[in-house]
Amino acid sequence: MTLDEKFDAIAADNAPGQEGRQDQGDLNDIMRGGQLEGVPVDFSHGDVDAFPPTPGSNAAWNDGFKQGGSQAYTEYRGAAKIRNGLADRIAKFTGRSIVADSELIITPGTQGALFLALGATVATGTKVAIVEPDYFANRKLVKFFGGEVIPIPLTYLKSPSENSIDLERLETAFKSGTAVFVFSTPNNPTGHVYSGNTITKIAALAAIHNVTLIVDQLYSRMLYSGETYVHLRSCALRPKNLITIMGPSKTESLSGFRLGAAFGTPELIDKMERLQAIVSLRAAGYSQAALDTWFQEPSGWLAKRIQEHEAIRDALLKIFRAANLKTATPQAGSYLFPQLPSLSVDIHTFIKLLRHQASVTVTPGSEFGPTSKNSIRLNFSQDHSATVAAAERIVKMVEIYRA
Amino acid sequence: MTLDEKFDAIAADNAPGQEGRQDQGDLNDIMRGGQLEGVPVDFSHGDVDAFPPTPGSNAAWNDGFKQGGSQAYTEYRGAAKIRNGLADRIAKFTGRSIVADSELIITPGTQGALFLALGATVATGTKVAIVEPDYFANRKLVKFFGGEVIPIPLTYLKSPSENSIDLERLETAFKSGTAVFVFSTPNNPTGHVYSGNTITKIAALAAIHNVTLIVDQLYSRMLYSGETYVHLRSCALRPKNLITIMGPSKTESLSGFRLGAAFGTPELIDKMERLQAIVSLRAAGYSQAALDTWFQEPSGWLAKRIQEHEAIRDALLKIFRAANLKTATPQAGSYLFPQLPSLSVDIHTFIKLLRHQASVTVTPGSEFGPTSKNSIRLNFSQDHSATVAAAERIVKMVEIYRA
Repeated sequence: MTLDEKFDAIAADNAPGQEGRQDQGDLNDIMRGGQLEGVPVDFSHGDVDAFPPTPGSNAAWNDGFKQGGSQAYTEYRGAAKIRNGLADRIAKFTGRSIVADSELIITPGTQGALFLALGATVATGTKVAIVEPDYFANRKLVKFFGGEVIPIPLTYLKSPSENSIDLERLETAFKSGTAVFVFSTPNNPTGHVYSGNTITKIAALAAIHNVTLIVDQLYSRMLYSGETYVHLRSCALRPKNLITIMGPSKTESLSGFRLGAAFGTPELIDKMERLQAIVSLRAAGYSQAALDTWFQEPSGWLAKRIQEHEAIRDALLKIFRAANLKTATPQAGSYLFPQLPSLSVDIHTFIKLLRHQASVTVTPGSEFGPTSKNSIRLNFSQDHSATVAAAERIVKMVEIYRA
Repeated sequence: MTLDEKFDAIAADNAPGQEGRQDQGDLNDIMRGGQLEGVPVDFSHGDVDAFPPTPGSNAAWNDGFKQGGSQAYTEYRGAAKIRNGLADRIAKFTGRSIVADSELIITPGTQGALFLALGATVATGTKVAIVEPDYFANRKLVKFFGGEVIPIPLTYLKSPSENSIDLERLETAFKSGTAVFVFSTPNNPTGHVYSGNTITKIAALAAIHNVTLIVDQLYSRMLYSGETYVHLRSCALRPKNLITIMGPSKTESLSGFRLGAAFGTPELIDKMERLQAIVSLRAAGYSQAALDTWFQEPSGWLAKRIQEHEAIRDALLKIFRAANLKTATPQAGSYLFPQLPSLSVDIHTFIKLLRHQASVTVTPGSEFGPTSKNSIRLNFSQDHSATVAAAERIVKMVEIYRA
């Protein structure tokens, strides 16, 4: 693959947050009707003003700054003192112990963790199973490192017991040379949580076929009422090469600190640290200090945050379903992935119009895989009433531009 | 290249700051004489407790945090508002205008900028000219991306007018398919500043042979008395593809914020942003706010900082030269690269002994290229008196272990 092909494969023009760099073209020429007034809502990412960073996170940064040199220049895998505490807390959450010295690396966001994990496992020709739809960067990373994407379909619009990835396709892929499987649960963009049965099966298949698993559990703490979550690393039968990824950017709103964590097989953590050394040395030293607030938030803080998101989720589902927009119920996390009907304009134009005419920013489904071109992704970690009004504007816009 | 070969090429065990992870072996068995007492000095990086971060940098972070969402989620290339101001100030420093929207990207440290610049220009088989000695990550990055290293020797132990890279070797390399030339000036580890003539020649040769230039000017602000600095980007004749890299981690002691900047050819900045999107999204949002202090420090602040470093430089040069350790005079920056005589133990063992017996941490010259195995690198941005005492312990250790 030439450099130009490589960079075509990682185009970021439609990535969340990059909308401001797009050429808007002559939207006024194709716009129908007038402006839909309302508070602008940017669903491309969560609103940390509506759901502010964990209490004490800024004080922790200032403490780190005061601590000086030892916090500015940590090991590339992160400050030992912070890793020690964090390893215990994450182990408790995920149901299996973590050796802080060898099995944990602090990274610049979960994006940083994904980059390092795939960089440590994917080279030219490596076959990597990728769920469709799933987080867009997974696919781009595989292409950047020269790997081959093996698509695994996810059913997510049926009943919870029917929704699942295609395990037969996965097994076939594992049997025919797939070396790495990377996936997110809860799934980004649908909010589907892999069932305990599915997780156990994936772990067993990977163990049998010696496949490296990279499990992105970014949003696993925000689990809605009645749902259960099984951590793959807690399975008795699991592969030798297993990396789990989490981070405090979403539920905890610490995205501005750029922090993530990857934990698992020491040999992979070692490689990830070597790569980190040439990528950006380490997660910002003073930011790392904020990890001391993670998994030890004030009592009741997490429950309240989940409850508030669940209320927004339910309000949005009601609006979209009343308008016959097929939408899966997110079991965890704050992503919603409604499917749009046939429109009189192409989906990218519709999304530009949404922003221009209705002050609503969403991410196109095409970013998440070729099978979800007619969907849009919303991160509904936003002000409740502004979000409800914005969802109603989306429905109106669909009516205006319906084919 | 297999993944294992790739990761062997980027081994980080001897990298600055990673000394704590090394197996120390049985140093007591080979140690001669007793401990050399003194305040421990870690020359592997600057001491931000001795030379604290720019005044106001922590207040800027707190302002960024208070600003909330807009500062947490910037464009991948960094917040537009911050880029606008910074582009003007860097343009003034480097002698040529910078279009903030298209010609500048904010990165996670200068390491991040180097990674993105080489990732955007080096693929399998790309020939990249690398100076020996030069910053160790350059070589590692080229190998990681599958490129081929074309070595260019640097003479640095002669008189200032004789010191230079071998321009004939460079021209030959450019004529025979070298596509990229990456180098640091002031040179890391020697402190050599490329002369105006050399810079003009490099720019012209790259223009003629269509070579991409990546110029790492990280330490260019800390220019000692009597020295002059010519910015390559200010040359009238220069190549189409030119990226200059700087950052506030060294002179300004902001390493704990993880900030850097790359500026130059828009097409390369675009590619670097695409890569940043899959590497770590952006430099930590709240950290970016500290860039507002950069190139507008309080009056007299920079002059004082340079003066204090020059005093340490001169004290160390006196000590090492009195002991007949060949050492180039750094013209800028805070690196010193003394050459050691033949020792009775290998250099890596000597460096471990230095740490164990004399509480002095240094970086082995082998990290900077195969031609400087007998040297050690010191970052002398440290407390003045502790540094002088540590340099005297280095000299004593050389006497103890002299072959």
